[in-house]
Order: sequence, then structure tokens, then C-alpha cells
Amino acid sequence: MRGTALSVVGQYVVGVDFGTLSGRAVVVRVADGAELGTATHDYEHAVLSEALPSGRRLGADWALQVPADYVSVLRTAVPEAVRRAGIDPADVVAVATDFTACTMVPTTADGTPLCELPGLADEPHAYVKLWKHHAAQGQADRITALAAKRGEPWLPRYGGLISSEWEFAKALQVLEEAPAVYATMDRWVEAADWIVWQLCGSYVRNACSAGYKGIYQEGSYPGREFLAELNPAFAGFVGDKLDQEVGELAAVAGHLTAEAAAWTGLPEGIAVAVGNVDAHVTAPAAQATAPGQMLAIMGTSTCHVMNADVLRDVPGMCGVVDGGITAGLWGYEAGQSGVGDIFNWFVTSAVPPEYHDVAAREGVSLHDVLSERAARQQVGEHGLVALDWHSGNRSVLVDHELSGLVLGLTLATRPEEIYRALIEATAFGTRTIVETFRASGLPVSEFVVAGGLAGNSFLMQVYADVLGMPISTIRSQQGPALGSAIHAAVAAGCYPDIHAAAAAMGGVDHHSFVPDPDNVRLYDDLFAEYTRLHDHFGRTDALMRRLRARRREVLSGAAQ
Amino acid sequence: MRGTALSVVGQYVVGVDFGTLSGRAVVVRVADGAELGTATHDYEHAVLSEALPSGRRLGADWALQVPADYVSVLRTAVPEAVRRAGIDPADVVAVATDFTACTMVPTTADGTPLCELPGLADEPHAYVKLWKHHAAQGQADRITALAAKRGEPWLPRYGGLISSEWEFAKALQVLEEAPAVYATMDRWVEAADWIVWQLCGSYVRNACSAGYKGIYQEGSYPGREFLAELNPAFAGFVGDKLDQEVGELAAVAGHLTAEAAAWTGLPEGIAVAVGNVDAHVTAPAAQATAPGQMLAIMGTSTCHVMNADVLRDVPGMCGVVDGGITAGLWGYEAGQSGVGDIFNWFVTSAVPPEYHDVAAREGVSLHDVLSERAARQQVGEHGLVALDWHSGNRSVLVDHELSGLVLGLTLATRPEEIYRALIEATAFGTRTIVETFRASGLPVSEFVVAGGLAGNSFLMQVYADVLGMPISTIRSQQGPALGSAIHAAVAAGCYPDIHAAAAAMGGVDHHSFVPDPDNVRLYDDLFAEYTRLHDHFGRTDALMRRLRARRREVLSGAAQ
Repeated sequence: MRGTALSVVGQYVVGVDFGTLSGRAVVVRVADGAELGTATHDYEHAVLSEALPSGRRLGADWALQVPADYVSVLRTAVPEAVRRAGIDPADVVAVATDFTACTMVPTTADGTPLCELPGLADEPHAYVKLWKHHAAQGQADRITALAAKRGEPWLPRYGGLISSEWEFAKALQVLEEAPAVYATMDRWVEAADWIVWQLCGSYVRNACSAGYKGIYQEGSYPGREFLAELNPAFAGFVGDKLDQEVGELAAVAGHLTAEAAAWTGLPEGIAVAVGNVDAHVTAPAAQATAPGQMLAIMGTSTCHVMNADVLRDVPGMCGVVDGGITAGLWGYEAGQSGVGDIFNWFVTSAVPPEYHDVAAREGVSLHDVLSERAARQQVGEHGLVALDWHSGNRSVLVDHELSGLVLGLTLATRPEEIYRALIEATAFGTRTIVETFRASGLPVSEFVVAGGLAGNSFLMQVYADVLGMPISTIRSQQGPALGSAIHAAVAAGCYPDIHAAAAAMGGVDHHSFVPDPDNVRLYDDLFAEYTRLHDHFGRTDALMRRLRARRREVLSGAAQ
Repeated sequence: MRGTALSVVGQYVVGVDFGTLSGRAVVVRVADGAELGTATHDYEHAVLSEALPSGRRLGADWALQVPADYVSVLRTAVPEAVRRAGIDPADVVAVATDFTACTMVPTTADGTPLCELPGLADEPHAYVKLWKHHAAQGQADRITALAAKRGEPWLPRYGGLISSEWEFAKALQVLEEAPAVYATMDRWVEAADWIVWQLCGSYVRNACSAGYKGIYQEGSYPGREFLAELNPAFAGFVGDKLDQEVGELAAVAGHLTAEAAAWTGLPEGIAVAVGNVDAHVTAPAAQATAPGQMLAIMGTSTCHVMNADVLRDVPGMCGVVDGGITAGLWGYEAGQSGVGDIFNWFVTSAVPPEYHDVAAREGVSLHDVLSERAARQQVGEHGLVALDWHSGNRSVLVDHELSGLVLGLTLATRPEEIYRALIEATAFGTRTIVETFRASGLPVSEFVVAGGLAGNSFLMQVYADVLGMPISTIRSQQGPALGSAIHAAVAAGCYPDIHAAAAAMGGVDHHSFVPDPDNVRLYDDLFAEYTRLHDHFGRTDALMRRLRARRREVLSGAAQ
């Protein structure tokens, strides 16, 4: 099925995936995408959520990182992966990276992280703000509210909500809580671009995070007047600290410097691709770059990315960005804020000892025990319907005040039945997104799954039955790193574009889970019930929001 | 406060409470209700739910008992209680009993249980049908539907629903499944009356079970035409097998026979009171016989009994019976089909190992651990609302197809929070009943609690705060047996009526739990939310019924 250009024989690329706790390097054969060697390196400082290395305490919802930890990955995991691959490093033709997002590094003009400057090691705002730093919620709320009030044209591109995780909210927090640090900060850099800067000595913003996290739309950012209304001192933020040449994904950002060659053991001067984001970079690894192929990266939460050749308004999407997944196409992103997290919460909080005993005795996980028992049931047998909003709802309702619900409980309800109902609820949530895309003129022709949950075949079958579509699954166990390697191959000119590279180097098992027609029919009925509940509690009755408000009120009264 | 008639000094009464698994006898001083000695006896055959003693298998939902086990209680527990009391048996002036209901004994004309006849020991329908025998649901459904169709005037007296647990449904099941047994059966006797028959040799139906379980209203039963329409062979049921003199509660049914005197060691010829039902008999033990005093017997489920001097239609009540609790007053009964059962289900099915470990380490129950942690929270802090319908809803919705719901779950929700929400939901369910009585012209002036849950002071405080009323609690640990003893004292003529006897012999701690005004206000808001959910899922959206129907459909399809 695959044609291999003779010219790429004997060539290799390196992809490096920077995750939340570690970085992973993989060495990949350009001709066919074979993963020849891999190595991971844990960040020495992991996530700073309680205190700085100095011992200084951090506030609630903070999450910082230390940029030197990222460089350590280049120094250790990359050469180790090359060694394990057993190849001659001289045959590596390019390197590419992907990163968590939105993870932000405050730097000087030459890219030096502020936390490395003399006197700033004890300053929290001088560190990297990791994607899950949620302490800028107040700033995010003001950004969203002001944009809505002013009718900013870019707001609908983000489903009407600017997240506290993104570039502007986090920067505004620096300004308002540490103006001196803000003043010292010359550049506010996505970690995805900072690591590329370290590799090639050039600062290029990648189109993906600029668009999805940096509110960069149609060649411009939120305007000076908008920023000034947020905070007069923020008016010059874009021009002073953010704006930078934006590079297409899979383009060359620069060439490996002598210093980075020394770190990695890779040849000086090879192509370094423009940075990328871990979810979006996975699309070519799963051969899911064509319009209509929706890729769901399913883990603690689910991120859905899909290309299209048209621009449409999709209610509740997380973002639509020109070239955000693949140059030349509109990249759509949607999300479910809790998926695996909900199953983990259930397993941790709501499963009695005898199930733990069975898991221990059989040497399997509680998820395995519950999935195996749940799989024995027929659709509708448990009599339950749940709402999967334990962590709020991103797409399509965009409401973080929503909460979870389980309905249909009896004195005979067993843990595996609730577990199954929760899995089904997340599948119904996915179907809601798929149907919203369809209704917005963006039909989903194939549903492809990557991420940790792809390994639960019971769960995958439920998704196939609920969606009424076959589920395709990525072949690679390290989708983001392979995706980066594929981008590297394009940057090196081994393939004409990402689609061709994906065809040669990516891997997917098409239709590995096929819907059972009887179950599809039964789930159609249950999905209608889910949708009634979804609309009742998501759109009609604000009960969940009132309960949250009451909870906050009680807790703040208690704190006095 | 109490006046003791000189005439009763040195007199004692015996009360015997026949429960589901055992019988309990208590010896009580007539003058002041002091409980001097008690003894219990477990039924040898307990509940036959799987098989007869012969080994013959029983169907689903069957629950039978062996009548000789009841006589064993008279032979063993009664003399043992007298021995422990250290009194002279000659000073016992009366005995009274109460029983589970509706528990039915098929007998010959002289009261011999059919299962004791030659050749019938292997016939399931010849045994006692215990209250929780639920295999006559089909018959009950037909009785309710036909009564509704015909507009039978007695149907509203039962909140519109005739239970499968009651006399007519169970008898119709005998007729339709075992016509030969039905033909052999001369009398269809409440166990409450059968045990009195054994004690005094006279068959008198008690007003309580005749009214609440036997559809006996205004001196008559459902008519011949109604019964014939159910089944032509059932037309003569009332006249042939059921009708019998009805005795007032606390009246004399007869006098202790020589045989029963030999069994019990009590004096031959003493008064034997008319039979009674375990819930209703408790009212005088808790000094809750005045109009407006609602007694809640709170255990696995809750039974609410309340006297009134007027007849009113109360939506969803279980029954209203003239003299059903106390001669001369209208006795109202309402109920919550799941209360302690729901907490037990939660503790068994949904609490992780670390809580079990704490309970084991501290030597307390899981209920204690969860209650103690839940008690630390403020009202509304958990952000949850639940519906307490895991076992359906009796009052006020009368819908056994309803099911439980928990709403407001987040990834931070802890087991003690759900436990608290479930307790609150049952309290909201109680408030719904209290408010329905009020709205029907039957104000509740005092709320008195008996039963096992009265011992959970956190739960009691929640009820006080939710109801916005003080909670009074019964003093006796054996309310039904003491209640029977009080009835015995009236039957013996020691007191002019049950109210006077209750004043002298019963005991209640008035207002042992007083509502906290702040919590009352907060719970007013949460009760409004509960009521919205209650009405939405109980009255507007039949989702829960559809889920049940689908479950039955799937399971019956699976069984083919």
C-alpha cells in the first residue's frame, strides 16, 4: 500500500515529545515509520505545585516547571534513543518536537528563562507556567467577559470561552501579581517554541499554539484597545512581548546548532522543525490528517482534532485555526474535560474492598475488573443514565460549573454497572460533539482514537456502538513522538507534505471496533435520554450552577 | 407528671413482638412501664425464600414462614423473659402481641395451618406468606387497575395503590396458582390474629391489619362483583374465607387457654388483647397517640403513622383506617420504601477500602465513620442533591418504578459527601410527606422517631434541620414489644384507654434534637431544589420508568 521514495532509504528522524512529567525521544525510519529506539527522561523537578525549589510556598492552583529540565531531555533521552536504535547518528536528517500546551516560559530577549537570572530563582512568576496552572482564572474570566461585551470577532473561534490555561490569562496574571517580573520579561514564549529555539537558535512561533492558545487569528492578535481595557499596563503586551514570526507546522524553524548537536549527539545543521502541540501533532501518526477524520486523544480528558477545508462556526469548540493541525487546512479542536479522570475518580472513591481484592488476586487493575464485569451486561441492563460532567463540560456547552449525575440507581445496582454508565456517558458526550460537528456542516467520516484509553477494548466497543461508527485506533504506542518524527521528515524534505509522510510513516488500524447493529439501535434510544438530561441540566435548569454557587458561598463563609 | 392508680401496683403485663426473623417478649410493670425482663427467640426456619424444608425450590420473590416457629416463641421467649424479670408469673394480668404485616396464614376452620396437614408439607402455597413475599405482583396490579377502572370508593383510602404484600393479592395468587390448596383453605388469617387465636382460642380480626392490609373500610370489604371480575372463582372469597368479627385495638380478644398457659407459664384465663401490627403498636410506647403526633419508625424503610380526628384524603398515603392505630381516631399511614436500606446499599457497594480500614481500626461501623465525617461539613458544602428512590417511592408519588439519583458529582466528591446527600434526600422525602399531610388539612404538631436509625444523632439532627421542627425520640429500645405490653394493660382494664396507658407506661424524649435556624434556612433552599427534581422525575419526565421498562425488556430477551 505504501510507496517509499528511494531517496529516503537509510534516513532517520528523531521526534521528541515533552509531556507533563517527562520527555520521550524516538528514532524513526523515514522510509516506513518504524520506531527503532526510544528513551524517556523524567523531569528532575516534575511539577512545582506546592513550593519552589527554594522552598517558597505556592498558592492554590499553581503549577510551574523548570526549563532546564527540558534541556536535560535533549541531553539524555535523545542520545539514548539513538543508541538503542543502533543507527549511525550521522544518518539522522531532522529533529522535531512537540509539547504540552499552553505552557509558557518568560524569557529575556535571548531566550534565557527569567528563573535562571540572578535574584529571580525565588520568584514564582519567573518560572514556566505549566498548562495546568489554573491560578489565572480571574484574568481569564475578565478576558472572556470583555471580549463578549465588545463582540470581539475572535471569540466565536474559541466557542465563546478563553481559558485560564492560555497565553493571555497567564501573562496578565504575571503583570498584575508581579509587575517587576513582567517588566523584566522581554518575551512570553510557548515552551513548544522555546525548546525549538534551544535547538536551532531561532525563535519561531508555531501556528498551532499561536492559534489555539495565543488567540492569533487571520494574522493578528487581540488589539491594543482591548488589552488596555483589561489593564492599561497590558496595552502593549502583544507588540512588546508576544508577537513573533509564525511558522507553518512541519516547516523548518532552523538548523541544529553546534551546542544542541553536542547535547543530542545529532549532526550539526540538520533541520529542526517548527514546534507543535502534543495532541495535534499526533494526527499524522494516526494517519488522520484528511478532512473529516476526527482524531480523539483519549486519556484523563479527551481532545478531538479534525481538519476541514472550510471555516464553520461549531458551537462549543475549543478553537479553529488555519493550519492549526496541518498547513493548508482549517484545524478544529473540541474537548471533553473529564473522561479517564472520571473513571479514575470512581475507581478511587467508590469501589468496595472485594473488588480491590479480586484485582490484587488476579494481578490486574480495578479498571480491568470493572470493565470485564461491565462487558458481560447488555445495553440498558443496568437501567442507568449518567452525565459525564464531573469536571465540567467543555464541548459543546462550555460550562465548567456543570457537574456529574447518575440516575436510575436501585438497591441492586453494582459498581461495574455505574462504571459502565460512566463510560457510556463519556461516549454520549463524544457523540454530542460528533453530531454538533455534523450539524455545523463538518461531517465526521472516520473516528480515530489515540491515547491510553484506546487500550480498553470494552470501552472502545461501547464508543463504536454509541457513535454507530467503526472506531479506528492508532498503531503506535507513542503517537506524539512519532507525530513529531513525521513532521521532522517533512521538514527535512523527505516527503512533499505531511499527508504523504503520514501515509508512509503513520499507522492506524482502520475499523478495529465495528458497531453491533442491535446495540446501536439500543444506544440510539439511550442517547436520546442522555440528550434530554444534557439539555435539561445543561441548558434549561441551572440547578448545577446554583449548587456550585451555594458550595462556594458556604466555603467562603467558613473561611472567614 | 405521671399519676399511677394504686390498683395497678404489683401488676405486670407481657408484650410479644413477632418480627421477621425472631420474636421478642418483654415483661413490663403496669404502673410505670418499666421493662423488667426481655428474651428473644429466633425462628428455626427463619424465612423460606429459596426452598421449602423438604428441599422443594421456590420461585423468585417468594418469602414463606413456618407457623410452628411462632408458637416456639410463646414456649421459650415468654417464660424466659418472666424468669429474667424476677417476678411471680401469677402477677401477670394480660398478654398482647404484635406482628409483621401483612403476613398471612392459610388454615382450616379450626385454625390449623395447611402446611401442617398430611400431604401438604411439600406445597408452597400451604405455608405462611411473609410480608415480603412479592410474588403476587401480577395479582396486585390487576386489583389496582380494576379498582381504578371501576372507581372503587376504597381505592383513594390507599393512596390509589393496592400492594402485592396485602391480603387480597396474596389470596388471589393462591387461587390462581394452587386452586386445590385454595379449596382446602377455610380461613385466610393474618398471622397477627392467628397467634392471638393460639393464645385464647378465639379468632378475632384486628382493626389495624383488617383496615390497612385487608381493604376493610366502613364495615365492608371489596364486593362480590369486583372479586368476580378479577376471577370468577374469587367471587366468594370474602364471605367464604376472610370475613370475621373485627376487634378494636387494645380490646380483649379472649382469655389465655390452659394449653397456652402451659406454653407460656402465664396464668390461665388472663386477658389476651386483640392482635396488632408492629409499626402501629409502637405509637403508645412513644407517647404518640394524640392527633397531630406523627411517629416515624425508621429502619431499612420508614413507616409513618399518625392519628387524627378527621377523615381527609392524603395523596400517596398507604392507608387511612378508622381505629387503625387507636380506637376512636382515624389512623393514617404513610411510608418511604427505602431509607436505611439505601445507606446500607451505599456502605456495601460504594465505599473504598481505606474507610473500611478506619472502621476496623477504630472498632466502629462504616456508618459511624461516614456520619462522623459528614457531620463536619456545612449544609450545601458537598454541592450535591440526591433523590431517595433506590427502592421506589411509596408516599407521596406511589411509584415503584422510580429510582435513585445523585447530582452534583465532581472529581473531588468524597464518599461521606454522597452519604450525607443520601441522608438528606431521605429527610427531604420525609418533609415531602409532612408537608403533604399539612396541605391535606392534617398538620403535624410533633415528629417522633422510633426504630434503629433514631440512634444516629447526626442523621436525627439533619432531619430536625430539614423538617425545621424538633425531633422527639422514643425511650424504649424495644418499642413494638413495649407497645404490645401497653395494649395488654388496657385490655386488662388497668387503664381506661390507650392514651392513659401510654401516658403512664410509654416514654419519649421530647425535642431531643432541635433545629439550627441557619441550617433550616439553608435546607429550605435545598429542599426547593429537591422538590424541583422530585416533581421533574416523579411527575413530568417518565425517564426512570422508561429505564426500568428497557431493563426488563433486555433481561427478558436475555432469558429467552
